[in-house]
Amino acid sequence: MTELNDTICAIATHAGGALGVVRVSGPDAIRITDSIFRCSSRHPLASAAPYSLCYGQIVDACGNTVDDVLVSVFRAPRSFTGQDSTEISCHGSTYILQQVCQLLINAGCRQAEPGEFTQRAFMDGKMDLSQAEAVADLIASTSAASHRLAMNQMKGGFSRELRNLRDQLLQFTSLIELELDFSEEDVEFADRSQLEQLAEQIDQIIGRLADSFSTGDAIRNGVPVAIIGETNTGKSTLLNQLLHDDRALVSDIQGTTRDSIEDTTTIGGVLFRFIDTAGIRQTSDTIESMGIERSYRKAREASIILWMTDEAHPSDPETENTIRNLAEEKYLIKVHNKCDNPAELTTPSDSEVWISAKYGYGMESLNSLLVKAAAIPEISQHDVIVTNLRHYESLVKAQECIKRVRQGLQDRISGDFLSQDIRQCIHHLSTITGDITTDDILGNIFSHFCIGK
Amino acid sequence: MTELNDTICAIATHAGGALGVVRVSGPDAIRITDSIFRCSSRHPLASAAPYSLCYGQIVDACGNTVDDVLVSVFRAPRSFTGQDSTEISCHGSTYILQQVCQLLINAGCRQAEPGEFTQRAFMDGKMDLSQAEAVADLIASTSAASHRLAMNQMKGGFSRELRNLRDQLLQFTSLIELELDFSEEDVEFADRSQLEQLAEQIDQIIGRLADSFSTGDAIRNGVPVAIIGETNTGKSTLLNQLLHDDRALVSDIQGTTRDSIEDTTTIGGVLFRFIDTAGIRQTSDTIESMGIERSYRKAREASIILWMTDEAHPSDPETENTIRNLAEEKYLIKVHNKCDNPAELTTPSDSEVWISAKYGYGMESLNSLLVKAAAIPEISQHDVIVTNLRHYESLVKAQECIKRVRQGLQDRISGDFLSQDIRQCIHHLSTITGDITTDDILGNIFSHFCIGK
Repeated sequence: MTELNDTICAIATHAGGALGVVRVSGPDAIRITDSIFRCSSRHPLASAAPYSLCYGQIVDACGNTVDDVLVSVFRAPRSFTGQDSTEISCHGSTYILQQVCQLLINAGCRQAEPGEFTQRAFMDGKMDLSQAEAVADLIASTSAASHRLAMNQMKGGFSRELRNLRDQLLQFTSLIELELDFSEEDVEFADRSQLEQLAEQIDQIIGRLADSFSTGDAIRNGVPVAIIGETNTGKSTLLNQLLHDDRALVSDIQGTTRDSIEDTTTIGGVLFRFIDTAGIRQTSDTIESMGIERSYRKAREASIILWMTDEAHPSDPETENTIRNLAEEKYLIKVHNKCDNPAELTTPSDSEVWISAKYGYGMESLNSLLVKAAAIPEISQHDVIVTNLRHYESLVKAQECIKRVRQGLQDRISGDFLSQDIRQCIHHLSTITGDITTDDILGNIFSHFCIGK
Repeated sequence: MTELNDTICAIATHAGGALGVVRVSGPDAIRITDSIFRCSSRHPLASAAPYSLCYGQIVDACGNTVDDVLVSVFRAPRSFTGQDSTEISCHGSTYILQQVCQLLINAGCRQAEPGEFTQRAFMDGKMDLSQAEAVADLIASTSAASHRLAMNQMKGGFSRELRNLRDQLLQFTSLIELELDFSEEDVEFADRSQLEQLAEQIDQIIGRLADSFSTGDAIRNGVPVAIIGETNTGKSTLLNQLLHDDRALVSDIQGTTRDSIEDTTTIGGVLFRFIDTAGIRQTSDTIESMGIERSYRKAREASIILWMTDEAHPSDPETENTIRNLAEEKYLIKVHNKCDNPAELTTPSDSEVWISAKYGYGMESLNSLLVKAAAIPEISQHDVIVTNLRHYESLVKAQECIKRVRQGLQDRISGDFLSQDIRQCIHHLSTITGDITTDDILGNIFSHFCIGK
């Protein structure tokens, strides 16, 4: 996948819009595009200025028009990938976009792998690895907070903080390694108490970054909320209310929800990931009991549990027990549903709320309780928050190393052992920015991108 | 909606791709775009050459970067709409695209109605109405045939044929109307037998165009195929085989398919619209029996019926009766399913085929039988096929008029009555190309476009 000398193409937009874009990048991008393009001005693309647009037709081998298009022309190094590139803006039909790609492939392009355009930008030194990963996050961003996190990361704030740590660690270890060169003379260039201070400081910074992941993950993927309760308490109706659509099938027959449905929505600027679950009851229906088992599994992954109850039918004590057990270490909100008469609405507390999912009564109270339970801090333009599991794992490993260094300093172990741990800490931090990397890591990262980016 | 002096904006791509495009068109398009754009070269967009691209950032009122973008600049009249226009190419996040639109609206744009960009192109005389409608079809095209039909229509073949008819009719009626001016002299400028010949010819051409609609509709929306049969004969499994995915829930419990699922796929270049239906059986389940009733309704709309049977369990004679009744005037294919041993596969006939939906045996036979049953003719680059219900209805009305003209000529009715019918025929043909139109018609046509086109 690290091949850069061939020319790649891919559809860069989702099918079904008014417009669709096919991207081409590589040494032959302009020549290959030109071979399937008939410019209205009759000039070849080779003579087009960089950052200019040409109107014309994409034509197939038989001379049939595939579409009327606009071609954007970019020349190395002034392009996203750093290579010669074109973007073909077509009508947004899947058929047309596929035809255009097919013609490009017949003319010598290779179908791009997911993320290969961004990978080329990384290989060309246009961005480091954590910035490249932020491109994928930016595309996936669905809320102001996740957008801000991705934008901060793309602008390189996280990378700068990591480089700063690395520089300090490098200085630290080079002093120790210098001592090793003079080991016979038993000198200490590196002041041990100063080193201890620095290691403690780095430990704290890495720890703070790693800790920010729980916030980052909630912002990026949504705060997981499980809606759980006995059958027919209105779980699906509530989900529809929360999502403002009719995604879940609602009927008055018990056990309608067989599959667990997951969807996200933004409430008060916070992204929530709602998990509708099958109602809890004894059942002999194979599919349904599979659904109930899944409900419990899903609920265990949630950080907030909405426990739905029917105000008119007090819940079974055993069910109550199950749910309270499930909700340990989670934020539990008991939702008294079916208060279909507005007079029944009681003032909500921090753990209980009265609503009518059917008529939408009490939804504001539930919404503000959800935002409170999510407890997402305000993110400023300069906050560095870790959102990526790969970064988090590298930080955890780096922190283990720096803790070993601190222990080593206390135990007054020899410089070569200290140096080894510091080098490993630097290694883990470097994998985040891509200063140290392998084809395997790259392949794994970029394969999670969408095609065309 | 026929306002042209304001500046409109809309997201022109589907959310979720690597790239997303926001379109702006109107007298202030360039100024408004510039007001939210910070160009990397620091030049204002006003100084940008037409058909050029500028790299920079979209910034909000607080100076926060919303995204790194490329802005394309077009100037009247050399643009799709004929107006000053820009296209802002962003990262394909829904959040970003909505933010960019919101900023444009705050800066003075109006959110475009569906199809409003194409409507502006029509108002500007860039295309006639049937060509504008072909733009929507082009975007929706999913097969080689539907793409070719839309492209032929966009290139104006249909419009030319209609204009040709209109010109002949106009010449025809002007001769008759000339006679009316000289009515006291009782002359006949228009040779009645020649007129009869011409009317017959026009009748035939309009008839041929109207008849092409059944082909056009099948190509554009897919040949409707209902899959029907008793429960547990493998209807959903077959649908999955045909669609190559796991869209329908498959289990071995009877009555799993409650909702009828519809999806399209292309087989041998022909688009099919498959309708999976609930199994036919006596049931007390409310939701399921609603599903069965819907199955019959859907099957009545299909032009091909796949009657699924379980090779091991001969079907109930009553069910067989129901299905044979349902299939009158349709192409009925009896599918013997569950031939899970390849040795059981019998040679197919024109109305029967043996398959194993589970293992995919016999699928080629079924596929070729489907293509045969669809009976879609080859479409050449120059064929004029009517695909649009509005055009079809106008053609039917125009044909009624021309038939009255032919009858009138036979009955030797007076010129003024003849002229009236001819004028009406011209009117109906003109509504297709938009030479005669009303705001109501326009609003109705363009409201079926997607936003951003």
